Amino acid sequence: MKPVSRTRTDPEETRSRILEVAENFFRTIGYQKTSVADIAAELRMSPANIYRFFPSKGAINESICGRIVEEVADIAFTIARTDAPAPEKLTKLLTAIHEHNKATLIREKRTHDMLSAAMHENWATIKDHIERMTLIIEGVIREGIASGDFDVDDPAEAARCVKTAFMTFVHPQMIEHCILHGEDTEEGLREQLRFILRGLGKRN
Amino acid sequence: MKPVSRTRTDPEETRSRILEVAENFFRTIGYQKTSVADIAAELRMSPANIYRFFPSKGAINESICGRIVEEVADIAFTIARTDAPAPEKLTKLLTAIHEHNKATLIREKRTHDMLSAAMHENWATIKDHIERMTLIIEGVIREGIASGDFDVDDPAEAARCVKTAFMTFVHPQMIEHCILHGEDTEEGLREQLRFILRGLGKRN
Repeated sequence: MKPVSRTRTDPEETRSRILEVAENFFRTIGYQKTSVADIAAELRMSPANIYRFFPSKGAINESICGRIVEEVADIAFTIARTDAPAPEKLTKLLTAIHEHNKATLIREKRTHDMLSAAMHENWATIKDHIERMTLIIEGVIREGIASGDFDVDDPAEAARCVKTAFMTFVHPQMIEHCILHGEDTEEGLREQLRFILRGLGKRN
Repeated sequence: MKPVSRTRTDPEETRSRILEVAENFFRTIGYQKTSVADIAAELRMSPANIYRFFPSKGAINESICGRIVEEVADIAFTIARTDAPAPEKLTKLLTAIHEHNKATLIREKRTHDMLSAAMHENWATIKDHIERMTLIIEGVIREGIASGDFDVDDPAEAARCVKTAFMTFVHPQMIEHCILHGEDTEEGLREQLRFILRGLGKRN
């Protein structure tokens, strides 16, 4: 009897390896300068083989961006699942996403550039991500209504407004702009979080 | 006795004519494609003469952008001076700026591009403009506190938060992105305005 093992030709494994190598290239030499041929050469396979898995370099980037935004959603989920009171949880959640996106910009400029490019090229991925984040925020708002911390009629609408009111703190290009002009301040963040909590009907 | 008249060599007039011709070029063939030599030729003067008034093409653009944002500030001032109740005034003011910036993007794509470029090249002009708009908003908030419509401790802080919460509706690139992806909706605008009024302590 042959042993049950993953072989080199397992399609899922090949797909993962393509993404891993591509992400490595994108992060080190940059998305624009990487070609499908580079990725194929590194994997010792033909470009044609790559195209069996991904129709284009853009499609590879879409998968990688999906994985990167997944990390952000995980951070939000983890905080949303804690037992903290809703206002504290919302503050922590928004702050964590801001800090994470800022760290990506500062420490991983090329990843930041990939995401910025995705805002144009893979809008569907980013749009899905924003909708998911808005749903997580909505969940926290519902908890706050139940506990009497928030006074909101329509939690879905409120979540969309919170997302928009906080956009300049999480949008890659807006963060970049604020850092460049020295306008990324702790006090600015705290002010905006307080304003958002008041918009949700939280009294001081 | 010689008649008192403005002569061709009045420096203020020459300055104005340079700006007028440059703005016309920027709006028709675009900022990037216009050279100081083009502007000089149209005015039948030497490029050296232009440089007596403006040290660079960027400096010309800075003056023009200053004039364009002046229009936006005028719209805000006009609304801020009316007798309407503060919440209504704030709603009208923010809506008017959103509509104005959106109209510029749609009807005058090249002016929009000049302003987008200015966000990078002439940040001081844009920064002054944003600070001025924030002061106008602060004035309306102070009126709302006096009339009991708003419940805010620090009107300057509140004005900064309103500005940030409404940024996606006035920032040229954010508006462009929203229109491109069909996310510029009347309902989205109304929701955000309601949220902002609640953040200022207005009860429904």
